[in-house]
Amino acid sequence: MSRGQFITFEGTEGVGKSTQLATAREALEAAGKPVLVTREPGGTPMAEAIRELLLTPRDEAVNDLTELLLMFAARAQHLHSLILPALEEGTWVLCDRFTDATYAYQGGGRGVPREQIATLEQLVQGDLRPDHIVLLDAPVEVGMARARSRSAPDRFEREKAAFFQRIRDCYLERAEQQPLRYHVLNAAQPLEEVSRQVATLISRLVA
Amino acid sequence: MSRGQFITFEGTEGVGKSTQLATAREALEAAGKPVLVTREPGGTPMAEAIRELLLTPRDEAVNDLTELLLMFAARAQHLHSLILPALEEGTWVLCDRFTDATYAYQGGGRGVPREQIATLEQLVQGDLRPDHIVLLDAPVEVGMARARSRSAPDRFEREKAAFFQRIRDCYLERAEQQPLRYHVLNAAQPLEEVSRQVATLISRLVA
Repeated sequence: MSRGQFITFEGTEGVGKSTQLATAREALEAAGKPVLVTREPGGTPMAEAIRELLLTPRDEAVNDLTELLLMFAARAQHLHSLILPALEEGTWVLCDRFTDATYAYQGGGRGVPREQIATLEQLVQGDLRPDHIVLLDAPVEVGMARARSRSAPDRFEREKAAFFQRIRDCYLERAEQQPLRYHVLNAAQPLEEVSRQVATLISRLVA
Repeated sequence: MSRGQFITFEGTEGVGKSTQLATAREALEAAGKPVLVTREPGGTPMAEAIRELLLTPRDEAVNDLTELLLMFAARAQHLHSLILPALEEGTWVLCDRFTDATYAYQGGGRGVPREQIATLEQLVQGDLRPDHIVLLDAPVEVGMARARSRSAPDRFEREKAAFFQRIRDCYLERAEQQPLRYHVLNAAQPLEEVSRQVATLISRLVA
């Protein structure tokens, strides 16, 4: 049996990742592929507990390095207990955010040095990288308006527009550096058009 | 004002760390030094929440690297929000376990490669190391019997004797490599004798 493909969905708040993950899952299932949809930080009970720690607004200022180490702690658990075993069984894994989000949020957003992120990426992942990264890109104000309309903001969503602008810039920069792995879709288009593009991309990857 | 000294207390379960931390605190207070007593993993609300994650027995097998990253996430928070500011103010910091415990438990006990621990130590601490390490050393069966008699075992205390033997060996090996920083006390002696030695050591450090 061939190894499954590892496809991650990236983007700032409110760009439609959940909707497009569902579209991708349907396209893969229609093509007869076993699929696992998961998310970061999280994906296993232990990693979800770490996610809670990370997202809960709190009085204590969270050190940037603490946040970074927690992200990779959740990732180590998720990767080794869920993602890698699934890929090895031939399951396609669709993941809502992965290490590119760490470069974008902790690196671009918070200003954590990229070398620190790269050190932890190497420690936790070795050579593993996503096979494909779908970047849902939209102007920051579009995503923020959508995110605000749906729920109370978590610790990340409380940040200001400039924070999300740095995140978007970092994603776009990484996309330019890795043009074969990154697939950048314009998430400011009507939802149906983005979904059509995601379905087309998945068909192409399955073929 | 001169910087405070950073003194850590290390050892396997049931060797009397809490009692000797109290002894050291009294000796420092008697000498007129400002003192902060704290513990790892923990020491701040966020770091204590990470401690809970680490110690709670759970059905899911916790990946060794996840455990290691959580330890250092708690440490980054503790160090940057509590320990370093205290030391800079001239407070002496007494800490129940620190990075030597990570080498002993995750390295010696779980078999995590020492280089991985060293990578994270450098990332989180830079050049910071404890000024003094008090190792309360006792044969594993002595400590385990004491630990068992006092409470239900946490996720670490559920491990077998061989695990704690590897931890003790690792501590003793590190003590031999760093004879100036390490102070090894025989914790199998009567409590009063160990306390007398701790008080003498503290007087010597204050002088």
